[in-house]
Amino acid sequence: MFSNTTRIEIQFGDCDPAGIVYYPNYFRFFDNATAALLSAAFKMHKRHWIAHHGIVGIPMVDTGAKFSRPSRFGDIVEIRSEIADLGRSSFGVHHTLFNEGEIAIEAHEKRVWVGRDPHDSEKIISLPIPDDVRATLG
Amino acid sequence: MFSNTTRIEIQFGDCDPAGIVYYPNYFRFFDNATAALLSAAFKMHKRHWIAHHGIVGIPMVDTGAKFSRPSRFGDIVEIRSEIADLGRSSFGVHHTLFNEGEIAIEAHEKRVWVGRDPHDSEKIISLPIPDDVRATLG
Amino acid sequence: MFSNTTRIEIQFGDCDPAGIVYYPNYFRFFDNATAALLSAAFKMHKRHWIAHHGIVGIPMVDTGAKFSRPSRFGDIVEIRSEIADLGRSSFGVHHTLFNEGEIAIEAHEKRVWVGRDPHDSEKIISLPIPDDVRATLG
Amino acid sequence: MFSNTTRIEIQFGDCDPAGIVYYPNYFRFFDNATAALLSAAFKMHKRHWIAHHGIVGIPMVDTGAKFSRPSRFGDIVEIRSEIADLGRSSFGVHHTLFNEGEIAIEAHEKRVWVGRDPHDSEKIISLPIPDDVRATLG
Repeated sequence: MFSNTTRIEIQFGDCDPAGIVYYPNYFRFFDNATAALLSAAFKMHKRHWIAHHGIVGIPMVDTGAKFSRPSRFGDIVEIRSEIADLGRSSFGVHHTLFNEGEIAIEAHEKRVWVGRDPHDSEKIISLPIPDDVRATLG
Repeated sequence: MFSNTTRIEIQFGDCDPAGIVYYPNYFRFFDNATAALLSAAFKMHKRHWIAHHGIVGIPMVDTGAKFSRPSRFGDIVEIRSEIADLGRSSFGVHHTLFNEGEIAIEAHEKRVWVGRDPHDSEKIISLPIPDDVRATLG
Repeated sequence: MFSNTTRIEIQFGDCDPAGIVYYPNYFRFFDNATAALLSAAFKMHKRHWIAHHGIVGIPMVDTGAKFSRPSRFGDIVEIRSEIADLGRSSFGVHHTLFNEGEIAIEAHEKRVWVGRDPHDSEKIISLPIPDDVRATLG
Repeated sequence: MFSNTTRIEIQFGDCDPAGIVYYPNYFRFFDNATAALLSAAFKMHKRHWIAHHGIVGIPMVDTGAKFSRPSRFGDIVEIRSEIADLGRSSFGVHHTLFNEGEIAIEAHEKRVWVGRDPHDSEKIISLPIPDDVRATLG
């Protein structure tokens, strides 16, 4: 399915007193990687495709990561992100973070395609992923 | 002028590879301290007094800090926050961060009282600080 | 097994443009909750029990979370943390985050008890969890 | 004096419920910009030049920023960083953050060149900035 690769230079402030990336920051990196993945798929920046598709966002409902190698200040890591499955109104993303070509982290996400309820604009509901989006991501 | 004191326990993830608080995090602490200061003054939580006063927020226009002592994981620090001056539509806050009773940081902020332009609701403009707010903060 | 509850007030800067907590911040909250859990178990602050037990830390090897309800600026949430399993040199933690008494997030962690290799102090290795620690956490 | 320019794409998680960059994050950006400035000056990454010069770091003693325009998710901003003055053991940095060619923030930093006390390796002291560093930065 659709995939994309981004690169990040680990900054001093991303790291903790153990001298390695403070792991909550990886979820920030993965969130950015998913935004980049869909921006590459839709050929427009996330702030445009949210409006373009008439949705409110793609909130996270389930995420997790397995950490096999730490990364450090100055490391340049690569995140390969791929659509992992496409449900009716949700989709999965799989991220693999490489450090010097070796797998350092494997992570997964499940996100929902959400918008405003046509009957109550205050309410946010899951919406079916449109066919063209499905074709682009698949 | 009006003042308030908050306490923070320094967390592992607030610190950097040098083992001390990563200094951008102090600005997060001070932003929280200003929210607490005004919540104490207005006797309601910030998410209520923003609406109560019909404003959009109190954006920062100028801030700075002098760091004289580092703080570390597990330290419990105290932030004393005080309204420092009251202009027509802006106000200052002075924060002093104490670690074991000694001054560790002195910081200042200048914030603006902003709301929507009555003639163009897309536009954010500075508004005069109302008299009752001025009396409460002064 | 051993459990502990902490409380957090959601701050403005914890939230994103959707007005809800930016989910990577929850992993920061859970990391703090695990530190508090073990500090409660060992009856000393994490910065002391790391040294007391002669270890380097308890790095994360696997974590994940399921999000069922968002939290917002000003919400006071409660995190109930419990030791979920005790392996030879690793242990699990289960966190439940409650917002107004309802489950908002369920999260799990797997962490390793690590120290310096006695034969090569540059090397970090997993160590057997000592019997007294096992008894305290179990 | 020596200067360098870096570019940042504003990410979703850098922004707050007001939809603009949460201002403490700018200090993170400026810290990264100073690391990049000195890395460009010394022609090696910060994690190498810290060791190369036999110092412990360049801790911040004073910083501040004036904010004239907000930045938003998806904006690509440019930070121009320049050495602003060179004292005996401290130096200043001036950052200008541009958004679409207009000045959005002006910030300053004062940092100290610190290392271990030769008489007591537990103690961190300010050290004179070496002549070759001074020549490179000036």
